Amino acid sequence: MRAARYYGKEDVRVEEIEEPTVRPGTVKIAPAFNGICGSDLHLYHGGPIPPAPTETEAHPMSGEKLPVVFGHEFSGVVEEIGEGVEGIAVGDHVAVEPLMVDGTCNACKAGKYNLCEKMGFIGISGLGGGLSEHIVVEQRWVHNVGDIPLDQAALIEPLSVSVHAVRHAGIGPDSAGKVAVVGGAGPIGLLTSAVLKAYGLKTIVSEVSEVRRNKALESGVADVVVDPSAEDLAEVVRNETDGAMADVAFDAAGVGVVLDGLFSALGPGARLEVVAIHTKPYVLNVSGSLTMQDRSMGSSIGYADDHPESIRLVQEGLIDLAPFITSKIKVDDIVEQGYQKLLEDRSEVKILVSMN
Amino acid sequence: MRAARYYGKEDVRVEEIEEPTVRPGTVKIAPAFNGICGSDLHLYHGGPIPPAPTETEAHPMSGEKLPVVFGHEFSGVVEEIGEGVEGIAVGDHVAVEPLMVDGTCNACKAGKYNLCEKMGFIGISGLGGGLSEHIVVEQRWVHNVGDIPLDQAALIEPLSVSVHAVRHAGIGPDSAGKVAVVGGAGPIGLLTSAVLKAYGLKTIVSEVSEVRRNKALESGVADVVVDPSAEDLAEVVRNETDGAMADVAFDAAGVGVVLDGLFSALGPGARLEVVAIHTKPYVLNVSGSLTMQDRSMGSSIGYADDHPESIRLVQEGLIDLAPFITSKIKVDDIVEQGYQKLLEDRSEVKILVSMN
Repeated sequence: MRAARYYGKEDVRVEEIEEPTVRPGTVKIAPAFNGICGSDLHLYHGGPIPPAPTETEAHPMSGEKLPVVFGHEFSGVVEEIGEGVEGIAVGDHVAVEPLMVDGTCNACKAGKYNLCEKMGFIGISGLGGGLSEHIVVEQRWVHNVGDIPLDQAALIEPLSVSVHAVRHAGIGPDSAGKVAVVGGAGPIGLLTSAVLKAYGLKTIVSEVSEVRRNKALESGVADVVVDPSAEDLAEVVRNETDGAMADVAFDAAGVGVVLDGLFSALGPGARLEVVAIHTKPYVLNVSGSLTMQDRSMGSSIGYADDHPESIRLVQEGLIDLAPFITSKIKVDDIVEQGYQKLLEDRSEVKILVSMN
Repeated sequence: MRAARYYGKEDVRVEEIEEPTVRPGTVKIAPAFNGICGSDLHLYHGGPIPPAPTETEAHPMSGEKLPVVFGHEFSGVVEEIGEGVEGIAVGDHVAVEPLMVDGTCNACKAGKYNLCEKMGFIGISGLGGGLSEHIVVEQRWVHNVGDIPLDQAALIEPLSVSVHAVRHAGIGPDSAGKVAVVGGAGPIGLLTSAVLKAYGLKTIVSEVSEVRRNKALESGVADVVVDPSAEDLAEVVRNETDGAMADVAFDAAGVGVVLDGLFSALGPGARLEVVAIHTKPYVLNVSGSLTMQDRSMGSSIGYADDHPESIRLVQEGLIDLAPFITSKIKVDDIVEQGYQKLLEDRSEVKILVSMN
């Protein structure tokens, strides 16, 4: 079968590899659409870093070295089910939670499998990937998406990152009427705003890029947009909240100056949640930003038991993922129209790749 | 009547002042015991800073300039009740929640009156204080302590700071069996440990002072003590938790290196709570300390609706405050045996001052 394999920096090859066969407890899937993720970009442009293996060192969970099949944000159609698999039938549309976890570490034992000490990703660490004609996945990671279109179903994975972060911040269906500020309107910022809107919050999205601010407005996930390079975010939030300031803020940018701005927009007792990777330490004014306002801040990574909630939000029409699919391309064009395009074009949110 | 008044840096005078009279909605109290607080020490040794007024600038809530009657951690006996006061009778033993709040600011309207924008403290900002023979207090701030001894009742105020912080961290009676690390065994660290023990947590107290470690053990609030200058806190916690690490940590020291140590002792999904004032910013490794472990950190100041819970914990015998009362002195000795002693003697926890 054909598959796109990651060999290392700037080296992804579409080639013939052996087709996997179904085993007991697994599901064979024909992938439909693959989203390109920020981590794919980092791996492609920067070279292998964990959870990818290297040419010489295998990933502890998959036992595989490079090359590995690429693609971890994907949807597909069930082709075959292994012995003992229940609740999934041939022809079902599914989204894959692309994980491999140890199950015996402290985090796994505590149910926080997203923090598994040996965590690997299908499509990065081995065990196949979405950029192939077929993949075999353990039933545990296969989620039936019902009538969600297959292109939107490829976004269930990044949506689950946002659902996890929103829940980690203590926000849920009972938070309706609260006010949230989201810093950054890239894919995760937009999806986080979508979850917040689904839970009935008012959303104020702060983003320097005009095209991204427009996307936040047009997609309906932002009630208000702010350009923090030209406007005072705190002042806008003060006006929008009659002086009460925001109840919660999400940093989807991963930059210290964004955190500063978000803290300035928060009210007493508020929460700041980081849903981004900070590569530099943040100089936190513990007393002013937290203590004197009874505030908290938190951050999370990935998802654990969040896919069902993501699927529910889309199935019930509380989130429309269609506006975030900005391009659909073929795997043969993945470098120019995918990895390269995403670096250059801020109007792109999610580019979906299919094998044919 | 006699009262100890704060005039400014190193200037507290015991002198005759006018006796206050009861008004509708207020309670006249004969103060029994006053605890000396860290903020009293700062004011005495360092001079006036908010929420104290100055010689020329009145506090916005009290309208008073210096001098002000000192003493905000106090118990007393009800002498007289004003018109309309219900549920409090002459002779009742009470603890005073020593606040003055605006009631109309955003924080007050949200019920977070500890964050009142104009917040003042009885005994610091004006309206009398515990270091006097009589004081008149609005009924709202007067809490009946039942049969709690009057000396212990003077500790209800600092205990409420700890109750507020523990609740802010999401810890309560349903947290039994969890593991907490407390950094610092000064008065607030010890009282925080006491609350954690009352809620059924296992407590590991990290403190460099041997005499304070001993106090934490002898008072029963620490299950395990650690000297972080000689032992590896993370290693101790790992051994004590069979590798799972701590569920929650409290910084009662207000120093960055303590935060570093506490983060190293936390498990996946854990919470770090600051119950201290940091005078310097903290260099936070957002990704390593929070994101990659689904953690949160928070901090709070003061208390709001926490006195009843503090009183319940002591009345039900879940907390014994007696071990934390290390000296009882007369007001005439407050400088040498109070403000001076607390700077020099690490075996002191709470020094109680009485007028006679």
